[in-house]
Amino acid sequence: MKINGKSYRSIWLSGNGWSVHIFDQRVLPWELKIVELKNVEDAATAIKEMWTRGAPLLAMTAAYGLCLALRENPSDEALEAACSKLLKARPTAVNLRWALDKMKEAVKSLKGQARIDAAYKRAAELCDEDVAINKSIGEHGLPLIKSLAKKNPGRPVSILTHCNPGWLATVDFGTATAPVYRAHDEGIPVHVWVDETRPRNQGVLTAYELAQHGVPHTVITDNAGGLLMQQGRVDLCIVGTDRVTRNGDFANKIGTYLKALAAYDNNVPFYVALPYTTFDDSLESGADIPIEERAAEEVSFVQGKNGNVQITESQVANPGFDITPARLVTGYITEKGVVAQISQKYFDAT
Amino acid sequence: MKINGKSYRSIWLSGNGWSVHIFDQRVLPWELKIVELKNVEDAATAIKEMWTRGAPLLAMTAAYGLCLALRENPSDEALEAACSKLLKARPTAVNLRWALDKMKEAVKSLKGQARIDAAYKRAAELCDEDVAINKSIGEHGLPLIKSLAKKNPGRPVSILTHCNPGWLATVDFGTATAPVYRAHDEGIPVHVWVDETRPRNQGVLTAYELAQHGVPHTVITDNAGGLLMQQGRVDLCIVGTDRVTRNGDFANKIGTYLKALAAYDNNVPFYVALPYTTFDDSLESGADIPIEERAAEEVSFVQGKNGNVQITESQVANPGFDITPARLVTGYITEKGVVAQISQKYFDAT
Repeated sequence: MKINGKSYRSIWLSGNGWSVHIFDQRVLPWELKIVELKNVEDAATAIKEMWTRGAPLLAMTAAYGLCLALRENPSDEALEAACSKLLKARPTAVNLRWALDKMKEAVKSLKGQARIDAAYKRAAELCDEDVAINKSIGEHGLPLIKSLAKKNPGRPVSILTHCNPGWLATVDFGTATAPVYRAHDEGIPVHVWVDETRPRNQGVLTAYELAQHGVPHTVITDNAGGLLMQQGRVDLCIVGTDRVTRNGDFANKIGTYLKALAAYDNNVPFYVALPYTTFDDSLESGADIPIEERAAEEVSFVQGKNGNVQITESQVANPGFDITPARLVTGYITEKGVVAQISQKYFDAT
Repeated sequence: MKINGKSYRSIWLSGNGWSVHIFDQRVLPWELKIVELKNVEDAATAIKEMWTRGAPLLAMTAAYGLCLALRENPSDEALEAACSKLLKARPTAVNLRWALDKMKEAVKSLKGQARIDAAYKRAAELCDEDVAINKSIGEHGLPLIKSLAKKNPGRPVSILTHCNPGWLATVDFGTATAPVYRAHDEGIPVHVWVDETRPRNQGVLTAYELAQHGVPHTVITDNAGGLLMQQGRVDLCIVGTDRVTRNGDFANKIGTYLKALAAYDNNVPFYVALPYTTFDDSLESGADIPIEERAAEEVSFVQGKNGNVQITESQVANPGFDITPARLVTGYITEKGVVAQISQKYFDAT
């Protein structure tokens, strides 16, 4: 997508053909800082210290981190050491392990320069696959927005989203934002209500993306979405997800469930956008999903343009996500189409 | 209630018998600053610049502001000028007008020192009435907490609240906090989940109150309450309200509706605590309540211990409250008892 009128992916090879560029997302939206990763240590640091974020993008950073490691030493020992280092950078990131497994599969039977070349080729493929998946989610979500535009001519389609299911968390297009960008680029008037998404305010990144690409939007507190739906000012909700269980329940950033309840209560269609890789065949229902308790400082301090401020000295709790039951979901927008209900075939296809 | 072990009301006469003390709530919870109001200008400034807040407390500040004006000049002209000045300090505050009407009624037939004495007497009565109402709300709410304590022996009763329906917004006890303080003082183990309540984070004031009075509590983001209810970690919700309509719908701080939906979805009892003066006979339902759009800066900037930080440069929307439909309310805790449904007699009694 575009920043300052120029098209970017969120990770790309530099002109020299081997080093890797990403945005330092810690300073977004206040500063656009492109950093260069030159070795596996850089990649591990970028993952660990959250220069980069979002499950798909973390996975791609790890994939390219492995390329950078092999470029310096293509031995089996170096391969294993690099994988171990990258996995340790974010032990809970499932996608990261998945990407490294794909990379190892592609290079294990090769040696020397052939191994290095195969690694770079596979990393590029994984990135292209992510882009293709999100693009396809955009295509499949487009008719939903189109039909709402037809239903309410003369005013933009108002879409509420939560957190940053945007292109900055993937390689391009994003998941929940993909249909929005697709509709906007086709000339359909859209407007996005962006939940700020406390405690980490990832909504601010979504707002930044939308602003740079020219999509009209308004930032709201996480408290406001219910009223907007009561007032008929939301036509559609689209959110992302970290994990979908066998019965269609899904986990997403804390607060998603509250918006799903409000959407249901006000007959606002509520969609989840996701790649098939998000289906988790091992879990029966949302009750089986463990909830990560995150650092207290994320709640006690708020990060802004000029540093951070402490908002409370009290004890805080900081669960990272909640579970939205399948009964509140209108449909799942995947790269293979939109479905109203999850059934076994979706898991068989992963 | 207590601060640093000492009992306070949120407004009180100083030792000289005529000047008025309040807390400068702009610097709470970071600093405890007691200010002295010596004339009507001080009172108007305190109201206008939000040294003091909460509808009942604003009303009492206006009542004492009138006393301070009459003390300097008890003429009819000065009375009218003072009322006009105090009303202008916060034109939308209905309680403020109500309190000034009560004050005028009490002093209109008197002159000179008798008028001054009557004003101070009436202001003290209004404060005592507010305290008595809240104390009574506490008494009537107590059995709800007691029965939950009996149901789940061996662990504290967990109560979720939103915004600051606490004693710092009233003269003492608060509305939604009154049953909590009452239960705590009786030795029933309670724990309060305190929504931070973006954009202005009034939950931080609730946390301060609870901490000072020794009530166990945990601050959470506004996004977290739904998950806590899904996990069975909330036994009861109690919130305050700005206005209750004839059908039982009520307006409260933005985000209240989302918690009511989550409570309903998880069979968590959801109560509203309110004085009878909050019933608004003139409105049929929540749809009739106008929603105030507040300043954008409240969303764009977050106030903390060491100043504020800007969190977004995007366009923002900032509706001040939302409507919770009566169907989501388990009961209304008033100074006259707890009722499950609102009927005409409640309006007739106001």
